[in-house]
Amino acid sequence: MKPMISVQQAEQLIAGTIRDFGTEKVSLADSLGRVLRTSIEADRDFPPFHRVAMDGIAIRWDAQRSRDHSFLVEGSQLAGAPQKSLGSPKNCLEVMTGSVCPEGADVVIRYEDVVFEEKDGQRWARITVPAKGMWQNIHQQGTDRAQGATLMESGCIIGAPEIAVAATVGQSYLSVSRLPKVAILSTGDELVPVDQQPAPYQIRMSNSHMIAASLKKWGIDAAIFHLTDDKEGLTQKIHDLLKDMDVVLITGGVSKGKTDFIPGILDELGVEKHFHRVAQRPGKPFWFGTREADGGCAVFALPGNPVSTFLCYQRYVAPWLQQCLGIAPKSAIQAILAESITFNPNLSYYLQVKLVSDTAGQLMAYPVKGKGSGDLANLLVSNAFLELPPEKKTFEAGEAFDVYRFGF
Amino acid sequence: MKPMISVQQAEQLIAGTIRDFGTEKVSLADSLGRVLRTSIEADRDFPPFHRVAMDGIAIRWDAQRSRDHSFLVEGSQLAGAPQKSLGSPKNCLEVMTGSVCPEGADVVIRYEDVVFEEKDGQRWARITVPAKGMWQNIHQQGTDRAQGATLMESGCIIGAPEIAVAATVGQSYLSVSRLPKVAILSTGDELVPVDQQPAPYQIRMSNSHMIAASLKKWGIDAAIFHLTDDKEGLTQKIHDLLKDMDVVLITGGVSKGKTDFIPGILDELGVEKHFHRVAQRPGKPFWFGTREADGGCAVFALPGNPVSTFLCYQRYVAPWLQQCLGIAPKSAIQAILAESITFNPNLSYYLQVKLVSDTAGQLMAYPVKGKGSGDLANLLVSNAFLELPPEKKTFEAGEAFDVYRFGF
Repeated sequence: MKPMISVQQAEQLIAGTIRDFGTEKVSLADSLGRVLRTSIEADRDFPPFHRVAMDGIAIRWDAQRSRDHSFLVEGSQLAGAPQKSLGSPKNCLEVMTGSVCPEGADVVIRYEDVVFEEKDGQRWARITVPAKGMWQNIHQQGTDRAQGATLMESGCIIGAPEIAVAATVGQSYLSVSRLPKVAILSTGDELVPVDQQPAPYQIRMSNSHMIAASLKKWGIDAAIFHLTDDKEGLTQKIHDLLKDMDVVLITGGVSKGKTDFIPGILDELGVEKHFHRVAQRPGKPFWFGTREADGGCAVFALPGNPVSTFLCYQRYVAPWLQQCLGIAPKSAIQAILAESITFNPNLSYYLQVKLVSDTAGQLMAYPVKGKGSGDLANLLVSNAFLELPPEKKTFEAGEAFDVYRFGF
Repeated sequence: MKPMISVQQAEQLIAGTIRDFGTEKVSLADSLGRVLRTSIEADRDFPPFHRVAMDGIAIRWDAQRSRDHSFLVEGSQLAGAPQKSLGSPKNCLEVMTGSVCPEGADVVIRYEDVVFEEKDGQRWARITVPAKGMWQNIHQQGTDRAQGATLMESGCIIGAPEIAVAATVGQSYLSVSRLPKVAILSTGDELVPVDQQPAPYQIRMSNSHMIAASLKKWGIDAAIFHLTDDKEGLTQKIHDLLKDMDVVLITGGVSKGKTDFIPGILDELGVEKHFHRVAQRPGKPFWFGTREADGGCAVFALPGNPVSTFLCYQRYVAPWLQQCLGIAPKSAIQAILAESITFNPNLSYYLQVKLVSDTAGQLMAYPVKGKGSGDLANLLVSNAFLELPPEKKTFEAGEAFDVYRFGF
């Protein structure tokens, strides 16, 4: 039997095939969750003018004398109106939040600290709490970011704040990473569609739906196919998918069984194998390869067991996909094992855990009891895999390990 | 001046208006990210039969004698094929991962531990590593979950694992929370559309796009409107929205300025005010009310400053929405302040922080330097608001505080 490679080796071999799917332009509204592929600069200063930050009156700092000093009100400066000027440095203008600070003024005193009085048919503003300094309650032009400053870099994931900033600088269309064309092919004679009643020896398909749902995180609408364990049919279908797709995810058919045709078929079809079998549980029979022809295609052939499929997707496929999309690899997150665990086989063990952030700000990983890799229902009560390295058999409560999160 | 309410009071008043928007049926593929509103039970045992977990041979435990014991191979049990029986308890069947364990067998020995030999025209399987116990490499029927067991409860968010389990139990359509009809109305004469060049005293709209993007997390496609500070136009539009919508989110026009018509209009239109002004920074002028007529409508009128809008959405609107959708309120997550901070006003202060999970599994909150509530660009480099309570002025590095995350 050939020696298996480690999870670190598998990770490196996969990382060696990272490729760029190109870019496309999408509207601002459609850019949510996509990966920016250009830098975005400030087209104006942030803020673009001395912006009034409180409703009140604008005065000149060196005109203010003391508490109860009164200023003649010349008028109002509304938000969205062209900038006015103080007629006399001794007077004031009422100003509204979001308006331009009037020319000649450099302090805003909020309404709460002003009393308005009528004298001789004129309106006066008497200050009850004097300003403490120049530019009080004024958000000065350019203090957050200068015109031309880089606000977002290529590779950032576009969330709500990014959309707000892109809107502010007038980017109605954004250049983002093109999404790859992905096919999911499930195999196995034991599988029936979701809406069908399985015979006692059959089960319903679930892997393809699970992976398709996971891919939607990146906006990818995968095409789903199922084929039975018929070598000729599988060969024809995979041949077509390799030509049309950027990524083919196959579940099942990669182990040592009589109908595990996938590795042989991929070899026949000219897919270069990078590895088969990884020293891990679950997911040992994982196969990975690439084909250069027809624009290139990466093939992840995952073990058919649902938890194995999901682990391999989360641990290997998702990070690869992220980097192909232009997202910088994240440094590993660690969590603290909450209960001691023993695991004897000389394999990396992906323990299903429930991550809980405790009141002291620590990320605790509680093992979810289960029957090993087959226990699909346990994925419902866990939200991460904790990676326990093969060098040890006993893992003590309180130790920190790398963790791979999933779930909302 | 009226006393302001605390953030805890605001939270409670909002929580008092939580309502149910009802349910709807959606296809399994469309259910991703939605909230389940029924419990899902196992229609069969998990696994539904004694499932072979490794490719190899199935034997009877009490037939195994020792290392090098040979079994006559009667045939093969493939995945997806009806269950076979061992003809003789002394023989074996080859079995494939995912197949039913043959009747009469209770142990599977994996191919790695078997050598096949031809003798007298018959095929024999010689064991090189004997089984260690009954049911080895067999995932026994019902060991994960029993038929009838509740797998998912009403209120869970449907992610990839939930989709896999729903598929497994044959749920092609799921009952989920109906999404509310939401309108976002931005106000302010200073705002121009994203694709327009602003005059020196104008800025482009960003709040409505930011909130619309945030609502998409729940699958909500909000309708976006903008109106200038014209009382009559605003009144007519808000009147219509109150009738048609479940939730109206307004940005701007809630402060003390001359054109801050929103609180007055909402009062005129019969929206019951629950509070106006909260002792917090940013977001002090936050207004909240509800209207019972026409099926009910909740109105969140948020301050127009982008960071104020975003904080109020994340801190108040999103948790309310989650609970309306049937998601149990989450217990607060805490993070550890990484640098000491001083904040003098007697207000709850929402500090923009960058959360980083350190190698010891601690969630650290690094303050992002900024000019206060106006600094929209700082949202790009932060991913959470840390809630610093009003009772103190100085917050020491190492202290833990509640944190409100946003971002991917």
